[in-house]
This record gives sequence, structure tokens and C-alpha cells, in this order.
Amino acid sequence: MKKLFAEFFGTFWLVFGGCGSALFAAGYPELGIGFAGVALAFGLTVLTMAYAVGHISGGHFNPAVSIGLWAGGRFPAKELLPYIISQCVGAIAAAGTLFIIWTGKAGNAINNMQAGAFASNGYGAFSPDGYSLQSAFLAEFVLTFFFLLIILGATDKYANTSFCGIVIGLALTLIHLISIPITNTSVNPARSLSQAIFTGGEPLTQVWLFWAAPILGALLAGFIYKTLLQKNDNEDTSNN
Amino acid sequence: MKKLFAEFFGTFWLVFGGCGSALFAAGYPELGIGFAGVALAFGLTVLTMAYAVGHISGGHFNPAVSIGLWAGGRFPAKELLPYIISQCVGAIAAAGTLFIIWTGKAGNAINNMQAGAFASNGYGAFSPDGYSLQSAFLAEFVLTFFFLLIILGATDKYANTSFCGIVIGLALTLIHLISIPITNTSVNPARSLSQAIFTGGEPLTQVWLFWAAPILGALLAGFIYKTLLQKNDNEDTSNN
Amino acid sequence: MKKLFAEFFGTFWLVFGGCGSALFAAGYPELGIGFAGVALAFGLTVLTMAYAVGHISGGHFNPAVSIGLWAGGRFPAKELLPYIISQCVGAIAAAGTLFIIWTGKAGNAINNMQAGAFASNGYGAFSPDGYSLQSAFLAEFVLTFFFLLIILGATDKYANTSFCGIVIGLALTLIHLISIPITNTSVNPARSLSQAIFTGGEPLTQVWLFWAAPILGALLAGFIYKTLLQKNDNEDTSNN
Amino acid sequence: MKKLFAEFFGTFWLVFGGCGSALFAAGYPELGIGFAGVALAFGLTVLTMAYAVGHISGGHFNPAVSIGLWAGGRFPAKELLPYIISQCVGAIAAAGTLFIIWTGKAGNAINNMQAGAFASNGYGAFSPDGYSLQSAFLAEFVLTFFFLLIILGATDKYANTSFCGIVIGLALTLIHLISIPITNTSVNPARSLSQAIFTGGEPLTQVWLFWAAPILGALLAGFIYKTLLQKNDNEDTSNN
Repeated sequence: MKKLFAEFFGTFWLVFGGCGSALFAAGYPELGIGFAGVALAFGLTVLTMAYAVGHISGGHFNPAVSIGLWAGGRFPAKELLPYIISQCVGAIAAAGTLFIIWTGKAGNAINNMQAGAFASNGYGAFSPDGYSLQSAFLAEFVLTFFFLLIILGATDKYANTSFCGIVIGLALTLIHLISIPITNTSVNPARSLSQAIFTGGEPLTQVWLFWAAPILGALLAGFIYKTLLQKNDNEDTSNN
Repeated sequence: MKKLFAEFFGTFWLVFGGCGSALFAAGYPELGIGFAGVALAFGLTVLTMAYAVGHISGGHFNPAVSIGLWAGGRFPAKELLPYIISQCVGAIAAAGTLFIIWTGKAGNAINNMQAGAFASNGYGAFSPDGYSLQSAFLAEFVLTFFFLLIILGATDKYANTSFCGIVIGLALTLIHLISIPITNTSVNPARSLSQAIFTGGEPLTQVWLFWAAPILGALLAGFIYKTLLQKNDNEDTSNN
Repeated sequence: MKKLFAEFFGTFWLVFGGCGSALFAAGYPELGIGFAGVALAFGLTVLTMAYAVGHISGGHFNPAVSIGLWAGGRFPAKELLPYIISQCVGAIAAAGTLFIIWTGKAGNAINNMQAGAFASNGYGAFSPDGYSLQSAFLAEFVLTFFFLLIILGATDKYANTSFCGIVIGLALTLIHLISIPITNTSVNPARSLSQAIFTGGEPLTQVWLFWAAPILGALLAGFIYKTLLQKNDNEDTSNN
Repeated sequence: MKKLFAEFFGTFWLVFGGCGSALFAAGYPELGIGFAGVALAFGLTVLTMAYAVGHISGGHFNPAVSIGLWAGGRFPAKELLPYIISQCVGAIAAAGTLFIIWTGKAGNAINNMQAGAFASNGYGAFSPDGYSLQSAFLAEFVLTFFFLLIILGATDKYANTSFCGIVIGLALTLIHLISIPITNTSVNPARSLSQAIFTGGEPLTQVWLFWAAPILGALLAGFIYKTLLQKNDNEDTSNN
């Protein structure tokens, strides 16, 4: 049960901090934090919660991460569903809290005809910079693939794992630095779902891509890491 | 006594660095550091002092942190009052030093009819982006709740505690990335008090919220961490 | 073989993340990440992959790094060619993937008469800010010299090596903070080659400088570190 | 001798990276890194070199740091002069290299009637934002005082010293986030001297302040740390 609370609070924080920084602070005139600030915020949600509750639940906060770790042989299948449910519930609770705070400013209301409304993800007309469905899918696929490769590598028993919370958090920052203009950056189905539920309209009908592409990328990463990169226990590990 | 000096210098640095970067550098034409730079500055004050004097006093630099640690069973009640007094004295001394330096530029003077004057916190007409009292209270409450959850988790005996100074400092950066437009970000009653004393007027009458909301959030975090997240000593801790 | 896959994926990520952030996100109106965001992205590609696959291949991701480590007596000559080939293949694969995603936005096409087109490096008329060949050569030479000095020092057996992935990644961020306006920053022949192949034209004819200057800087660093800085095993190492 | 080479290269890198990022990249139209990027660059020069050569020389790269460490009882008086000379020679060599690269762009020439010319420090008419001599002195004094308090604390034998390179580097970033508009930020007499030599004119006649204020701040920090903060060996150190 403690694991599921940890995933709930961790994913709440990811959505509250990442999407919250986008909603409240990115576009503030002249002094706003821009996409770089939002990228930093998303990464820091994971960095901070990884060290806070990583020792309790492993610190996934993302269905694609749980699935990729399963594919890499690091997470048991029977825990997948409870983890994913906790993550989605945490994300939706955070989106609701953001909605309450955000609508406390006169004039703030969701316009779901606008790309990126309420920090939602999208492609085509709903991509912040007008990237096609194909570009969006490829970007989300490649980025989640590398996100999981980094997670699997940084938590490998032969790696310097005490840094993994910093590494994984900053990997998420990097991913956002690259791709906010393409899809508003997901790589996390729970984060996409929570914002789409509140946004409705076309962003909600597009949410399938932000489940499909990250999960496929994560599955491939689990397979590739196991077969091409992971050291066998009987290999010489002293090299380099 | 050394603990109280450590809290004095640490809170001085938090206010001098965080509020100072806002006063001197945030709005400099074209090259200014903006809200993202101020967020980084606040976080780095805590990161640097946590490693510098954390081994002396624990590195709280914030009455809400001391109270939340007490609620979580990590700090003795009898040290609360001396710590909070040292923190407030350090914050006020820093605000005074900032005032002296800042008024060494022709034209710099506090206009307490302006939101965020002298880096003060506020809500309603004194929120940088016009957020209501309710939004401000909820934001400060949620953010301090998570700040304490991160502090309690990152310093847990089962966590990888050597990173806690980095984690807690960057958590404060993240909190500022989200919420400067809402309240100018407090989560720290001492930091709010020091700026309000020099600002006077409405910002001073609003300072109650920046004691009440952070302290309530911190108390809840202490309770939640103890009851829902903290591992018992007789639990299996090898998992994950 | 695992080493070469690690170098392939690492260099793919370096080019995809670094050049990708420049292509997609640097110049987005008002909210774009600018040169500072690109600098952070390049550094984080190395930081993340160093902890992910550093235990497999050493985490070079750059022909100049492999050559500099050889010059410093840390890498065997016989592994140089396979490493450099893997790095170049990874970089080119990343550039191709970037091209596919990037051209999924209407109007995006490479104009190789423009400085910095498709994140290519250049000097003279192809320097982002109009710096001469001599300035470009000196900058790339000095920056790669210090990059290797930092790598050799941070991985020295007398150094605190567990931090080397953070240090080397942030060194690359620093290098980009200084020099994007001069040459669009290379210090990495594989990264320059991959973008120039897709750009063609004058940027491709200038690519020699981004092999020559970084490699010469790296060779000098290997020599200087060995002769002027490296401690002998029989020296007193307790000092400081 | 290796110590002096380490200080030479470290201080070269501090000036080349910090002042170089200011000269080349801070004000680039729209995409420039601004004061926040320069602040990050200065900090990363120290962070990277601290891990690269800290095990050789201790990694001071700053006469005020050497003097403050001596005042705190951590550095022998007889090494002060050779260290300070190495630091100044390294800083001047870096400024010369910057001058060569920088003048490789048509139109770049030093105008020493302008505040901050060639990244020089100044007060009054030569303060970037017009702060008085008194404000400049107080700011440099307080900032160097805290810089040394952090250095002395983070390298204390009771502290978690493996992080000290990160902490000290990011402290320098923080200091720049606060004070570039006040004095263009020194806290380092060698860095001020090197730029003033090339700038000449009024910035050179003002360089006394950037030796006096940082050295006085450092001396006070050494004294305060020893007397108010440092634990005695016979104190209970298990607390907190």
C-alpha cells in the first residue's frame, strides 16, 4: 500500500509541478520562465520525488516507465496495474488542483480549440508548432525509448546508481528541452490523460497517441537494453 | 548556540540571495534573469547552505520546515522557538542589508501599492498575476506540503540521504518555477515577514496567509509522511 | 560489441538531443529556450548517457574524447577506430531521425546558405555571429583542450570520480554557453560531420576545421595532463 | 609545482568561461544567454575544475579564496603568494586569449567609457545598473563573506565533503544571479585584474575595490567560521 501512496504523490507532483509551471509561469510577460523553465520544472519533479519516495516505490510516476521496467525484467507484471492506476489517479487529482488554483485568476478558462490548452499534449493542429501526427509519433517514440534506456542503464547493478534520481530527472528535463514545440511533450501517458480529461474536445481524442507511442518506445527500450547492452554476470566487468 | 548562528546565517543567505536576485537582476532590460533565475537563486541558497551548515543545525532556514520536521517526529519541540527566532532575525537582517544596497541606485524606493514590491508576497491585488486569496492559500498550502514531504523523504534513514541538500534546494527552485506569478512564492514565513516589514502597507497586513498556509501544509505533510509513507523498522526494506 | 552499441546510442542521443533542441526549440517565439537551453541540452545528453552506459563503454560519444584519452594514456589505440566509427554512425542516424521529424512541419527545409542551418557548425560567413576562421579555430582548440583536461582530471584515480558524469556533462554545457555564437559549437567531430552531411554546401566544406581543431586540442590536453598535472604514484597524495 | 599549474589552468578556465560567455553569448539578439547564462557559466568553470584539479591544488582559482582559507586555518601562509601569482597569471592569459578570439569579429573593440566593457567590473558610472561605490563595496563584501562561509562549511571535516565542488561552483552561480547588475560581479580579485588590464581607463582605476572588498569579506568569514560555527573535536557531533 505504501508503494501506491508513493506513486500517487509522486505523479501528483509531476503533473502539479510540470503542468503547473507551464500554466502559471511560462508565458508571464517579459519575466516568464519559457519552455526552458517548464523543462526544468518537469525534471525537478522527478528528481525530487525520486530521492523522497524512490526507496518506497522505486519512483516510476509514469505508466510507460513501469511498463519499460517490466520489459527490461526489472518490475513484476502483477504490480503493473496497481501502479498505473495509482499514477493516473495522482495525475488527475493534480490536474483538478491546478484547475482550482488557475481559475482563481479572472479570465482564466480552458479554450480547447487552442494547441496546448491547459498544458495538454497534441499533434497536427494541436501541436504547439504545427508538427504532423507522424512527427509527433516518432518524437514521442524515440524520446521515451531513450528515457527508458537511461533509466535501465542508470539503475543497472553495474552502474553508479546513487546518482540515478539526478540522472533520470535531468533526462526528463532534456526531453522537454527538445520537444515541447512538437507535442507539448508527453513521454508519460498519465500526464497526458489528466490534462486531456480537463481539456476535452480534440486534445482528448488525440490522447491515444500519448499512450501508444511512449509505451511502444518503452517496450523496445526494455528489449534492446536486455539484449544489446546489459552485461551478463559472467562477463568481465572490470574493464573501463 | 552554534546551531542558532547556523540558522541565522542560512536564513540570511536565503533572503539575501533569493529576494536579492529578484530585486537586482530579475527585470534588468533584455539580459535580466527573470522568474527562472530567481527560482534558481532561491534553490541555490538552500543547496549551498545545506552542505555548508547542515551538519551544524540540520539546515532548516524556514519556520515551516522546523514545524513540519517536528510534526514528522524528527525535531524536538523545545528547539522550535529558538530556531524560529534565529530564522526571523536572520531574514530581517538580510532584508535590511538588501535595502541599503538597493537604495544605492538613484530612484530605487519601495512603492507598497505595487504587487511584489521589495520582493514581498501577496494575494488578490498584491498577487503578481492577480490570483485570488483562495488560489494563493491553496497554492502555498500544497507547495509547502510537498516541500516537507520531499524533505522528510529525502532525509529518511532508508533514503539515499547524502543527496538531500541538492534535492531540497532544487525542490525550492521547482516551487518557485511554479508559483512566483501566484504569490511571489513564500512557503517560508520568515522570508515573507522580513520583506513585509520593510514594505509595510497592504503587503504587511497580508503576511498572515504566508504564516498560516505554509505551516498548515507542513503539519499535514508531517502527519501524512508518518502514517502513509514511512517504513516501519520491521518491514522488509530490501524491496526495490 | 556492447561497447560499440553503447557508443552508438550515446552519440545518437548527443546529436538528437543537442541539435534537436536547437532545431525545434531554440527560436520558438517568446517561449523558446535560446542558446542557454541548447547548452543545457547538449550537456544533459552526456550527463544522462554517462551514467546510463558509462559502465559499458566509458561514455566517450565523441572522437576527440577517445583520441584525447588515448593521448593521456587512458585508452588503447586498437579501440580508437571502432569507437570513432560507432560514434559517427550514431551521429548520422540521429541527424537522419531529426530530419524526418523536423520536415514534418510545413515549411521546414534546409537552407545551406544560412549560418547554422540544420544545426551545422561554421566559421566566417557561416559563423552565427560572424567570427573569422582564426577565431573559430582558436576557440574550438582551446575549448576541446579544456574539455579533455576536465575529463582526464575528473576520471583520475586520485579524483572523486563518482561525480565524473555530472562534471563532464556540465563541462559541455559550459562550452556551449561560451561559444555557440562563434562556431555553433562543435568540440565533437562526429556531431559536426552528421549535420554537415545533411546540410551540404559550404558547411560541408568547412567540416575539416571541426575535426582538426578539436583533435589537436585533445592531443595537447592528453600530453599536458600527463606531464604537468598527473600525480605520480610515489608522490604524497594526502596534501589538500 | 603541479599545484601552481592546476591553479593556473583553473583560473584561466574561470576567466575564459565566465567572462567569455559574457562577451560572446550574453547579448546575442533574441537567443542570447543573458545574465542567468553568464551566472551558470561562472559557476560551471569552478564546478568542473574543482573535480578536475581539486585533488591537486585544492581548487581555489581566486586570491580571496586562498586568503579566506588561510584566515580559517585551512591553508598555510607560505603558499599564499605563489598561489595568488599563479591565479593572476592564469587570469591574464585567459583575458588575452579572449581578446584574440573576440577581435576576430568585425567591429569588436574595447570601449572603456562603457560600463562592463570587456567584462570588466565597476561601480558608480561603471556599474551596469548604476549602483554607488558604497553599494558595490557592501555587495562584494557580503557576497565574498558568504562565498567563503560556504567553502569553509562545505569542506569541513564534519560535512559531506564529496559534494563540495558542486556546492562551491553553484554558490558562484548564485552570487552572479544576484549581483551582475551591481558590479558585473567580482568576488575574485584575479578575475577583476585581468579584465581591467585589457580595458584600461576608469575600470582599471576602480580595480582596487575588487581587491579590497572581497579580501575583507573573506578574512571576516575565516574568523567568523572558526569562532562561531566550527565544531570543536570534543563536541558531540552525532546531533542532527
